[in-house]
Amino acid sequence: MLTLHLARGTISVAAHIALEETGLPHELAWLDFGRAEQTSESYARVNPKLRVPALVTPDGILTETPAILEHIASLAPEADLMPADPWAAAKAREAMAWCAATFHVAHAHKMRGARWADDPDAHEAMAAKVPETMTACASLAEEMLTITDGPWLLEAVSVADFHLHAIARWLPGDGVDLAPFSRLQSHAAAVASRPAAARALSHHG
Amino acid sequence: MLTLHLARGTISVAAHIALEETGLPHELAWLDFGRAEQTSESYARVNPKLRVPALVTPDGILTETPAILEHIASLAPEADLMPADPWAAAKAREAMAWCAATFHVAHAHKMRGARWADDPDAHEAMAAKVPETMTACASLAEEMLTITDGPWLLEAVSVADFHLHAIARWLPGDGVDLAPFSRLQSHAAAVASRPAAARALSHHG
Repeated sequence: MLTLHLARGTISVAAHIALEETGLPHELAWLDFGRAEQTSESYARVNPKLRVPALVTPDGILTETPAILEHIASLAPEADLMPADPWAAAKAREAMAWCAATFHVAHAHKMRGARWADDPDAHEAMAAKVPETMTACASLAEEMLTITDGPWLLEAVSVADFHLHAIARWLPGDGVDLAPFSRLQSHAAAVASRPAAARALSHHG
Repeated sequence: MLTLHLARGTISVAAHIALEETGLPHELAWLDFGRAEQTSESYARVNPKLRVPALVTPDGILTETPAILEHIASLAPEADLMPADPWAAAKAREAMAWCAATFHVAHAHKMRGARWADDPDAHEAMAAKVPETMTACASLAEEMLTITDGPWLLEAVSVADFHLHAIARWLPGDGVDLAPFSRLQSHAAAVASRPAAARALSHHG
């Protein structure tokens, strides 16, 4: 059995989609970030980083979205959620690394400025730049989607698409106008039209 | 042939170590960040993100350190730089994702605050917090190294160790006292004692 620790509004929707897509037996352990449940002592024993997602497996606990996504894919090879071709796998990993280290980080500066500065004025300055940085990231994601004839990052759907989509969901709330980004809109529609992905998304508002 | 685009003082030393460790034929294309060569038109054609490393391969161009490291390992399976065991591979990917999205990002707030705010006072506030955030990251890395009996993150050396080491090299310059972190010190010594890794490190000062 797998247990996914997750919270609404967070990147954990990507791992949730991956689990639904694979059909792997799993349980969901919801955390309420509004009540700061991720900082509880009991959750610190699951993930000392106090973040979601965390995946509890028979082998141990795994954190970090790119690692969790690829591990879920590896547990259900018949779902074909990571490319078998080594170069395509490398490109999937490149997309996920960028999502985690650049796109997600840009978004985090809206609400999580306290991670990187103590001065409230600095938090405001960070939040003020989020529409610009997220627009730049959306523009790069749009370019990434031109490499195939769409709708996916690679020739077929992969866990990298779930990672990208989980972050792209934040764009309107981050002040980004999606109108210029038709491929990102098609990407979102393609994810949402998959019954398994839609089942997961329905829990995340 | 592989060509690694890299620059001194940057995360690209990790990919450089991996290439030396594998013995794969490669060329090095050095960029001088002091002269902002990463922003040149010619480099923008290699990597529109204007970052290093970028690896030019017969299949195409690959960016993002976790993806490049795992791809180099996959091109030289005899070097055993990614674990064959799926769970160990997942833990290597977890470490690299954390290095890229948290540890490296914490460091970047010292010199690259302009990525996330326009206000110079905010850049100062970000730089002021770097010793604290990098110490917290060093502490977590030290914990990660306790899982094995050392010196590596996993039972054997992997590309995740080169990623961790590339960032840990920045700790003293970021105002972190390494004295409490004996496992990180042993880790650095273990990397530096490998002839291939030492050959790469000798180019990075």
